[in-house]
Amino acid sequence: MFRNVLQANREVTTLDRRSFLFTAAAVSSSAALAACGPEEDQAQQQTLDAGTPDQPGQAASAIRGVREWRLVTTWPKNFPGLGTGAQRLADNITVASEGRLSVKLFAAGELVPAFESFDAVREGKVHLSHSAPNYWISKHRSAPFFASVPGGLVAQEQNAWIYHGGGQELWDELYAEFGLKAFLAGNTGTQMGGWFQKEINSIDDFKGLKMRIPGLGAEVINRLGGTAVNLPGGEIMPALQSGVIDATEWVGPWNDLAFGFYKITRNYYGPGFHEPGSAIELVVNRTAWEDLEADLQAVVADAAAATTVRMLAEFTAANIQSQRVLTEEHGVVLRPFPADVFKEMMRHSDDVVRETAQEGDLARRIFESWERFRTEARARNPYAEQGYLQLRG
Amino acid sequence: MFRNVLQANREVTTLDRRSFLFTAAAVSSSAALAACGPEEDQAQQQTLDAGTPDQPGQAASAIRGVREWRLVTTWPKNFPGLGTGAQRLADNITVASEGRLSVKLFAAGELVPAFESFDAVREGKVHLSHSAPNYWISKHRSAPFFASVPGGLVAQEQNAWIYHGGGQELWDELYAEFGLKAFLAGNTGTQMGGWFQKEINSIDDFKGLKMRIPGLGAEVINRLGGTAVNLPGGEIMPALQSGVIDATEWVGPWNDLAFGFYKITRNYYGPGFHEPGSAIELVVNRTAWEDLEADLQAVVADAAAATTVRMLAEFTAANIQSQRVLTEEHGVVLRPFPADVFKEMMRHSDDVVRETAQEGDLARRIFESWERFRTEARARNPYAEQGYLQLRG
Repeated sequence: MFRNVLQANREVTTLDRRSFLFTAAAVSSSAALAACGPEEDQAQQQTLDAGTPDQPGQAASAIRGVREWRLVTTWPKNFPGLGTGAQRLADNITVASEGRLSVKLFAAGELVPAFESFDAVREGKVHLSHSAPNYWISKHRSAPFFASVPGGLVAQEQNAWIYHGGGQELWDELYAEFGLKAFLAGNTGTQMGGWFQKEINSIDDFKGLKMRIPGLGAEVINRLGGTAVNLPGGEIMPALQSGVIDATEWVGPWNDLAFGFYKITRNYYGPGFHEPGSAIELVVNRTAWEDLEADLQAVVADAAAATTVRMLAEFTAANIQSQRVLTEEHGVVLRPFPADVFKEMMRHSDDVVRETAQEGDLARRIFESWERFRTEARARNPYAEQGYLQLRG
Repeated sequence: MFRNVLQANREVTTLDRRSFLFTAAAVSSSAALAACGPEEDQAQQQTLDAGTPDQPGQAASAIRGVREWRLVTTWPKNFPGLGTGAQRLADNITVASEGRLSVKLFAAGELVPAFESFDAVREGKVHLSHSAPNYWISKHRSAPFFASVPGGLVAQEQNAWIYHGGGQELWDELYAEFGLKAFLAGNTGTQMGGWFQKEINSIDDFKGLKMRIPGLGAEVINRLGGTAVNLPGGEIMPALQSGVIDATEWVGPWNDLAFGFYKITRNYYGPGFHEPGSAIELVVNRTAWEDLEADLQAVVADAAAATTVRMLAEFTAANIQSQRVLTEEHGVVLRPFPADVFKEMMRHSDDVVRETAQEGDLARRIFESWERFRTEARARNPYAEQGYLQLRG
């Protein structure tokens, strides 16, 4: 769970607003949107545009030629998997479009703080963001469904629901309320349950437990009698060391190894109940999207989908390697939560997730579509990947 | 398993060689390769090229402008998931490149028979093919590793091995021997075990069983005492009805429902041991690929990767729906193979797959890379997707 690395990032990086030239007039004008880069970029753009013949009858996409789009992210610069994946996505769009859609990436805090990226795209300050839908729960209680919710779908199921199970249409409806359009653009795979100072043998071990875990998962921990604490990534290690917290979850073996939690405790539990297949999104300003030529729309959509599969592949391969390092080189003891503990986690997860449906008509329809998909996937899984892996070992 | 729908296809369709204008001189010349379409296309291409200023110093990619590439497939026209996925891939490349790389799709038999598509690309008759690597086992015994082998990897693992586990490099090395370059461009997910006239209660039930199953899986059935039969798709139903065969596997609920096997028997077993995550490939003539501009290379690579995730999503969603239809509307009885039966299947699968390593240095390195990945994935899975799905249900 990355939420707090972002907060850390926001605190430790300096927002250089001088580099952020926002023109109020750009907000509602699609032509201006296409030219919302720094002034020198605009000059260059006009020069390049002049060399490209205008297409007659395409007044709506007035600026034909080179577009300079800025992609803000919720990740630190080159953060493994996420930051590096966003960079490859930006580069891919630039290269595949032969520079006609040139995408420049900004790490969290470079242009806007991580948690302002949604609004930055909404308000037309930038065209694109790469982030996790569950970060926007304060914008809409149902946003996490398009990332991952406790007791939810694994990546293959999530992709099936979004691409071919009605999910994208609901996501479009939700984000249209904010003037946005989103695409799947990554997945971390099933996240780990976390690091615990003491072994977890029964559900009672959560009573009074102080655990670093954010979002809907935090609500579940609280209902189990624990106390969920929200800490920035950089504060987890000292908090765990000093006893301010008794446990923490983060992402998975790859990123957890990098943080060095194994130096504090060797009790590593997984899988987690809280983010079984965290989808990552590419968000586009809707006006800018609708103004984009069909070929560049296809370039963006394909690059986003390509990122979905490549990022999950990278997390899967790196987690496999890193788990081996953790257990073989650092003596980490891997365990699943006891079955009855996981069952309780799932019971509370179902409650927490179901309660989102109370928030209105769209929230209810999102929950119902997702729940129907999960129910049918459950019936299918014993005869598909899950059943096979269980038999293969 | 699709191998035989292709044979059926080859038999029932007419190869119109008049539409296939192959110039022998095109084989080794990259410039000619780029212009190996029908004569009228070449004329058009030259006309269009004339309107585009040549790039100085880019003699290697002499023909800049509109390229017309033909994509042959091993699928019947609009075959669900595979044929439709190939069509979307072709259209995506054409649209994303703004028609500068215009890809026209030909179903199996339209231009070349299905099983000649590999050679057609190798010989430069066409630029692209969309097929399954396991079809080319007669070209190289290790080709199926890049699709799916008995007891092998599920789609998420396969993608991880190919994209980030060393698989792509070995695949490149193997296909370079044939003057080809391949990309992942689809996956069907875990295939079902098949339809059986009589229940399978023990390994002895395979003794004397006549089952339609091709490839390395066929070898496993033979070692279990059965008789593997290779039948074209269109012949399976009558063979099952008349008792020529006692059992058949095909693909999964979506495609199996379409064939109507439930009308003959309601004993449907799954998952299968033989193709746990069948990867689909986009194959490009290597000379043509190396001659392609960087932007068009990125367009092709992204479109292929996008097809990988979208096709798996479509199979996953459609299989979930179709399984419900089979069980609820057609009274199909779904069962896994008994655990000890599956164990025997896996034992023979391991032998059959390991034997491929005897074929030479590259074959050995492919097997060892794949086996190392599978071993480490096995250690990781209980703490990742597999473990989570088992606990979630």
